[in-house]
Formats: sequence, C-alpha cells, structure tokens
Amino acid sequence: MAQRVGVIGGGQLARMMIPAAVNLGIDISVLAESDDSSARLGATAVGDYRDVAVVREFASTVDVVTFDHEHVPADVLSQLVNDGVTLRPGPHALAFAQDKIAMRRRLGELGVPMPGWTMATTSADVTSFLAEYGGRAVAKTARGGYDGKGVRMITSADEVADWLSALAEGELLLLEEWISFRRELAQQIARRPSGEVALWPVVETIQTNGVCTEVIAPAPLSAGKVADMAAHIAVTIAEGLDVTGVLAVELFETLDDRILVNELAMRPHNSGHWTIDGSTTSQFEQHLRAVLDLPLGATEMTADHAVMVNVLGGPSRGMTSRLGQAMERHPNAKIHVYGKVFRAGRKVGHVTVAGDDLDSVVAQARGAAGNFQD
Amino acid sequence: MAQRVGVIGGGQLARMMIPAAVNLGIDISVLAESDDSSARLGATAVGDYRDVAVVREFASTVDVVTFDHEHVPADVLSQLVNDGVTLRPGPHALAFAQDKIAMRRRLGELGVPMPGWTMATTSADVTSFLAEYGGRAVAKTARGGYDGKGVRMITSADEVADWLSALAEGELLLLEEWISFRRELAQQIARRPSGEVALWPVVETIQTNGVCTEVIAPAPLSAGKVADMAAHIAVTIAEGLDVTGVLAVELFETLDDRILVNELAMRPHNSGHWTIDGSTTSQFEQHLRAVLDLPLGATEMTADHAVMVNVLGGPSRGMTSRLGQAMERHPNAKIHVYGKVFRAGRKVGHVTVAGDDLDSVVAQARGAAGNFQD
Repeated sequence: MAQRVGVIGGGQLARMMIPAAVNLGIDISVLAESDDSSARLGATAVGDYRDVAVVREFASTVDVVTFDHEHVPADVLSQLVNDGVTLRPGPHALAFAQDKIAMRRRLGELGVPMPGWTMATTSADVTSFLAEYGGRAVAKTARGGYDGKGVRMITSADEVADWLSALAEGELLLLEEWISFRRELAQQIARRPSGEVALWPVVETIQTNGVCTEVIAPAPLSAGKVADMAAHIAVTIAEGLDVTGVLAVELFETLDDRILVNELAMRPHNSGHWTIDGSTTSQFEQHLRAVLDLPLGATEMTADHAVMVNVLGGPSRGMTSRLGQAMERHPNAKIHVYGKVFRAGRKVGHVTVAGDDLDSVVAQARGAAGNFQD
Repeated sequence: MAQRVGVIGGGQLARMMIPAAVNLGIDISVLAESDDSSARLGATAVGDYRDVAVVREFASTVDVVTFDHEHVPADVLSQLVNDGVTLRPGPHALAFAQDKIAMRRRLGELGVPMPGWTMATTSADVTSFLAEYGGRAVAKTARGGYDGKGVRMITSADEVADWLSALAEGELLLLEEWISFRRELAQQIARRPSGEVALWPVVETIQTNGVCTEVIAPAPLSAGKVADMAAHIAVTIAEGLDVTGVLAVELFETLDDRILVNELAMRPHNSGHWTIDGSTTSQFEQHLRAVLDLPLGATEMTADHAVMVNVLGGPSRGMTSRLGQAMERHPNAKIHVYGKVFRAGRKVGHVTVAGDDLDSVVAQARGAAGNFQD
C-alpha cells in the first residue's frame, strides 16, 4: 500500500507537491482552506486549519502530516502529537518558524551568524536599539509575517508606535540590525528524521517591495567560501532545530563579506521553485521523501544555470490568454500556473529556464514571465 | 478560466498527464474504468468508455477530449463529433490506430516504408504469404492487440487456424513480413491542429516477450541518416493521417539498413516516458499543449543520454517496500510508480536516469529498476 502524506494548507506549495507525489506513487491528501484552493486537485478535506476537530479528522486519514505553511496553532499541533500523529517538521521545530524571537534566541545558542537583534515592548527600547545600530533598524512582529508583511524599516520609535500599543500581555516586538547587504541569498536543505541531509546550491534571490521576484541558481560567483558558509549555516540550523523536510534559510551577503541569517521557512520555498526544472530532485519531491524518511535524491543541477522569475497578479492580467504567447516566444521556458484567483501582487505562477549560458537563461526567463505582465 | 482537458481512460498514461496539467495550470479530468484506476487522482467520472451515454456526459464537462488508449468504439466517437465535441486526435486519425489493416493501407498510399503485408481470411491465403516471404510471417489481429497480444510469429497456417475460424463476417487477419531487424526504434512526434510539429530524438526500444522493457535515448549511433529517416517517416505519418497530440511510430532498423514502420500509437507511449526526466518538454506536457493547440515546447535533451527501464509486476513484488532500497542505492534515479495493482508482467512503474556517460546511465537505470524485481 502506498504511503499517505497529508498536507495542511492548499496553497501553491501543496499544489506543487502533487506532481512529485504522482510520480513516486505516494498518496497525497490536502486540507484546503476553500473549494477553489490552488491545490484543489489533491484536496480531500476543506476546512479551517485552526479548528482542532477539522485537523484531527484530516490527520486520521494519512500516515504523516506536513505543511503548506507554518501557521497551524501550537495547541492544534499539540493535540495531534497527543493523538500519536506523525508531524514533520515537528512542533518543537515549527515553533522556531512561528516565532521569530524564539528563532533568534535559538540561533544565538547555536552560534549562527545573524544581524544584531533585541526584543522591545516600549518606545524607549526602540530608541535605545536605534542608537546602538546607527539610527536605523528593521522592526518585525514576532508572529504572522510573510512576503514583507509584518516588517518595517524604521529610523524612529514613532514608526512602530501602533505595533507597540497593540502588543498583548507577554508579546514582544523584534528589532533587528538594518543590514547593508550586497545581495540576498537562500540556502535550501532537506533533512530526514534519520539524519540524512541534502543541499542544493546556494542561490541569489531578488526581492521587489519585499516579495521575491527572481532567483538565480547557483548564486553567481558563490563557489567556494560563500557556498561553504551558506551550507554550514543551513546544516547547523537543520540539525540544531531538528527540522525534518525542506528548510529554506534566507541569508544576507554583507558588504563586508559576512553571511547572516535573515529568515527561515520550514517547508518548500519560493527560492527553490527552480529545482523542479533545474535539479535532479525537486524541493517538492525531496520534501516528500524527507517527511516519509525515505532516502534523499540527488541535488545536482541539470544545467549550469537556472533562473526562476515569479509571475505576480495584476488588475488586468489574465493568465490563460498569455500562456500561448509565452509558449510561442519561449519554447524553452517551463511555465507554472498556480490556478489561483488574481490579485495585485499575488504570486500566481512562475517561469524557470535552465541552460548553460547565464545571460541567455536570464533573458529567456524574464522574457517568458514578461508575457504575463501588463 | 483555465482550459479543461478530458482524458478517456484512467491508465498510467492519463496518470502521467496529471503532473504536466498541474504545472501548466490546465484543468484535467479523467473518465476512469474503476475507482482504483492509476489516474484516480484526476478522475471526475468512473464508467465504461464503450457506453455512449457515459462518454457524452463526461465530454460535456471539458473543452477538449483526448485519450489514454485507442479503444473507444467508432460509434461512440461519431456521436461525440455529432455533439460538437472537440476530439484530439480525431476519429479519422484514430481509425488508423484502431485498425492495423486500415493503417497499412494508408501508409502504403503515403509511400512510407514498411514490411510486406497482406490480408488473409483463409488458410490458403496464409500458406501463400508464407511461401512468398521465406516460410515465416507475423500474424496480427486487425483490432485490439497491444504489448504483444494479438500477435503471433508463425511458420505454418495451422498456427492461426483458431483466429481464422473465429473471424466474423468482413473481418480480416493481417499478415506481415517477419523482419530480421538489427534493433527496434521509436520516433515520437507531437502535432498541433494548426500544423506545428515537434520531434524528440529517435530512441532504441528493447522488447522482452513482446513488452517494452528498456528505452535508450537517443538511439546509439543514430545521428545522421537513421535519425533523418525516422523523423521523415514520423512527419509523413503525422501529417498524412492528420494526427493531433503525440504520435509514437515504432520502427524496425533492418539488417540491410532500412527503417520500416512496425506499429503506431496515437497518444503518449512507453517509448517516450524518458522525456519526463530527460527532455525540456515531456511527452505528457507536449500532448496537452498539442491537443489544446498551444505552441509546442522545446524537445532538446537535458543530458547527453537518458535510459528508461520498465518495472513489471510479479507475484511477490511489492513496490513500496522496495522504494527506499532503490532510492538509497540510486539517488540519481527518477522513480515512477503508477499506483496499480500488481499482476505478473503488468507495467507498474518505470525508472529513468539521465546523464552524460551512457555506460553509467544504463547501469544506474537497470540497477534502480532491479530493486523492484525478485
């Protein structure tokens, strides 16, 4: 009998696990938020992932539970553990992805390089941190942020007065050093419960308004020291936090050649979408292997370079009508459409091109994605 | 709104269309034979493809209908055409895939090289053909054969006495020249209604007991004349028979260096499974593009060589228990499991390895597939 993986959340990450599951003969089930979720083809249940009864019922139908996102509440996860459900990653690891202050604290214990940081509850805390770090900082809500949400670049305590006044009892605001970086990188790693790890090449990620818009694999001129530092950091975190499945570590490469940890995601991640068309094993297949504790696949690239460009929704951008145009002009482009309703700025698809000439690969990937833009 | 493709038949070919549809954002629906079909994840209806009411109802839910197999009866196809359903390939093309005598006749009109052949209804017809072709021949039922079924290698009319006596009014037996071949090849081609065609490299196929067991892409030492002849034949047939979607042309390479057409399949085909992991565009994605009349994707190989080895079911062969072992030993192997009940000799999965050293690729592919054998 095939092994059954259940995914909580019906977004594009769950959607992109479906092809990998079909190929490997793994039965995949998705607990989706709505009938028209991106992963609707795999949906076996529709309901609220915060409702413990809904999640318990779903979990009872599968052999292992994993996630499209990190938002399942801790009390729901605890109940599943009490029921004997296998969760991968486990709640002890997910806690660090859900709470950025817990994450910073744990990374500090592990000796992982990261920006200076502190916790703040008052305006005086913020002012003090700003004074220490050159008058500027990055303020983050400890929980719930993604794609630039819950993040502000600040130069005065006034700019987070609303967040401070809204803090509940025991809640803290995270303040981080505002890093002058040369570029942003991401290191993806997969880890099985039995301990095996596998890493893809470190990639460069390009953000626009806080949202990832482009990924270049491998990161140009990263061979050697940069790749080694990124890999070492990712292995330290995956093992130190006991992550199972895919972990994405978002990194800053600073102007003074340090590699610092920015964010973590304990699931397949936008920075790894290129692996579907550019690596022997995609992050989605690897995630399924890892959460089932199956041996991990090879992570070599299938060409010298791969470039992924996101397609973001806009008010008048129809995906289907542009598909033929993109295919006509770019027969080498691998086009991915997530089946999501269009909203401005929402990630609705991506394009990957792999090849041996980076200039050509970048031009083709941007060109193909451009067909979906106004 | 996404375009909706309906597939009649729930076998592994329909199953392998699902990942391609998910990636492209195409809605795929499958009319399956049973609840536990290989393509059950995409099944929106379960019923008999020979039942015109079942098929009409299914066709009404999609924009274009295509096929997992070529067995839908002509009267059912006619009714769909009368209903205004878009069928790709169309009934006029499918007729040649369904009736091997009609196919031979049409290929003769097109001047395509093929073995000598005749139609037989009597023992005397058979004896006469055997005398003309050196005392041996290949006898085939005109309809319904696949994977070696409905095919006999004969040296006397007695060996088909049962088939001759069972012929219905108007039915004919096909007799073909028994070819001394160096090897078997297959040429896959995709064609859109608007006329565009795309070809993958010609491959070598290895049959065991009439069932394809291994495919080597490209066929060794085929560059140049062999590839040119195979491509010319495939284009002639695709255009001459007005095929839309993927067409596989099975070929003999004779000891005297001719290329002759053996069989046709008007759908994705076992000889093209390697394209999932070894070509920029897989046969399944290309089939979807073609039947939707979207521009065809690039068919370059992603490595110098790709080798596919089928996994056949056996009495005591469990797939899942062997999966971990195959993954452990062969991290480069792309393992495909069809979710089918095991029966001896049944195709239940395949393994592909792509790489730049053919000896290594063959060894890895055979090694990985070997983990599923007793």
